[in-house]
Amino acid sequence: MDGLEADAAVETEYDVLHAIVRRRRSTRRFLPTPVPRPLVEKVLEVARLSPSAANSQPWEFVVVTDVEMRQRIARASVSLFHDARKKDPTFEWNISVQPFLYQAPVLIIILGDRRLLPSYPSVLRGNVLLRQSLAICAYGLQLAAASLGLGTAWGTLQGGPGEVEIRRLLGVPEHFTIDHLVPLGYADEVEGSRAAALWAARERGHVRRPLEGIVHWERFDPSKSRSSEEVEQFIWSATVTRVSKKGAAPH
Amino acid sequence: MDGLEADAAVETEYDVLHAIVRRRRSTRRFLPTPVPRPLVEKVLEVARLSPSAANSQPWEFVVVTDVEMRQRIARASVSLFHDARKKDPTFEWNISVQPFLYQAPVLIIILGDRRLLPSYPSVLRGNVLLRQSLAICAYGLQLAAASLGLGTAWGTLQGGPGEVEIRRLLGVPEHFTIDHLVPLGYADEVEGSRAAALWAARERGHVRRPLEGIVHWERFDPSKSRSSEEVEQFIWSATVTRVSKKGAAPH
Repeated sequence: MDGLEADAAVETEYDVLHAIVRRRRSTRRFLPTPVPRPLVEKVLEVARLSPSAANSQPWEFVVVTDVEMRQRIARASVSLFHDARKKDPTFEWNISVQPFLYQAPVLIIILGDRRLLPSYPSVLRGNVLLRQSLAICAYGLQLAAASLGLGTAWGTLQGGPGEVEIRRLLGVPEHFTIDHLVPLGYADEVEGSRAAALWAARERGHVRRPLEGIVHWERFDPSKSRSSEEVEQFIWSATVTRVSKKGAAPH
Repeated sequence: MDGLEADAAVETEYDVLHAIVRRRRSTRRFLPTPVPRPLVEKVLEVARLSPSAANSQPWEFVVVTDVEMRQRIARASVSLFHDARKKDPTFEWNISVQPFLYQAPVLIIILGDRRLLPSYPSVLRGNVLLRQSLAICAYGLQLAAASLGLGTAWGTLQGGPGEVEIRRLLGVPEHFTIDHLVPLGYADEVEGSRAAALWAARERGHVRRPLEGIVHWERFDPSKSRSSEEVEQFIWSATVTRVSKKGAAPH
């Protein structure tokens, strides 16, 4: 293999990764089509290989296909929102994944074993390292799903009564956190593109700031600095969770 | 394209991703060979596309190639350890990336804009969501580097005087956190495989628990449950940060 061929091969791997990363989207409407178990295992295999603080590998997975259990878990995770809706009325609750967790044929619950905390240096906040490791694992899982043409979403849970209830439902020991709930299945593109409640996620979910605006060479470049007003405007015009009424879809 | 061909195409993307994920390792010894700027931009492009809580995209990047600045940053990040070494004598400090941050020809500093916190629902801990988003971004960056045959490592910083000093060195406004410092370059495989101080990272860094032991079907399977003693043994025999003297390399 000469140098040119080698370069071409390297370029191709990057291009494949780039395409997978672009394809990965939060899927909020799923087809009922089952996902064969070997595919689920392939997805988990990539998650298993994720890096983690200290190589602690704090993750374990519960894979739920039983529809009644999926519904119970979705209900428990939504309990988080009961009070929150009142306290945070400007939040765009429509994009929350939790109420729809049961719709995908497979629901993957990512457990984080807190007993691995002593593997981290005591000078750092172990809880953050644990949760960062679990997020990395969830991202790897999502990329693997996207590479197989499968859709995922990301339901976040941070303790609270929902976590206690889901642990009870699945028989999970108390030393595990439940940070991430990832539904897995084939995207229902028709429903996803039709659902009025999802317009903000649809319009905004795939938009990213241009590279030029976020890369500073050698030193922070003040000419690229956003003012606090610009950041606030970004939050209300570009994130999927804060949507001003003026910006609402016409339908 | 018939069904079989379509399946083959899907399989290939997964296989490429799987290979990239396996290849990504923490590189602790780098060659001085410069990394062309277009390659750095390709790496950042994948990081840019990462998912984040609320699609808040809290990341910006400072790319440092100047060797003196890299040394200053490495020194500042090591300040974290001065007291820590005494307080945490069983930690395997040899594997720390911070002292070697300057060795790679490119050092990428990932900034996290705290002004995006209001995009998260107030019911969740925004600080965790922000830091999870930044970790996801760092992982995407590392995968992109691996797909291009480049090595990376992961230096963690969580506030403290080192963060203040690095912000000052690079002229970064105070509303940015600096969580991750990622050196980027070509791995020095010879030095990396020779350095006695890295044996634990070399032996253990790529080892992962088998899938069978970490996947539970439908419910948590108590037969796969590790006892606290087993977890402690795992920490001391499998993580890269806790190494018992008995397990030390013969050389």
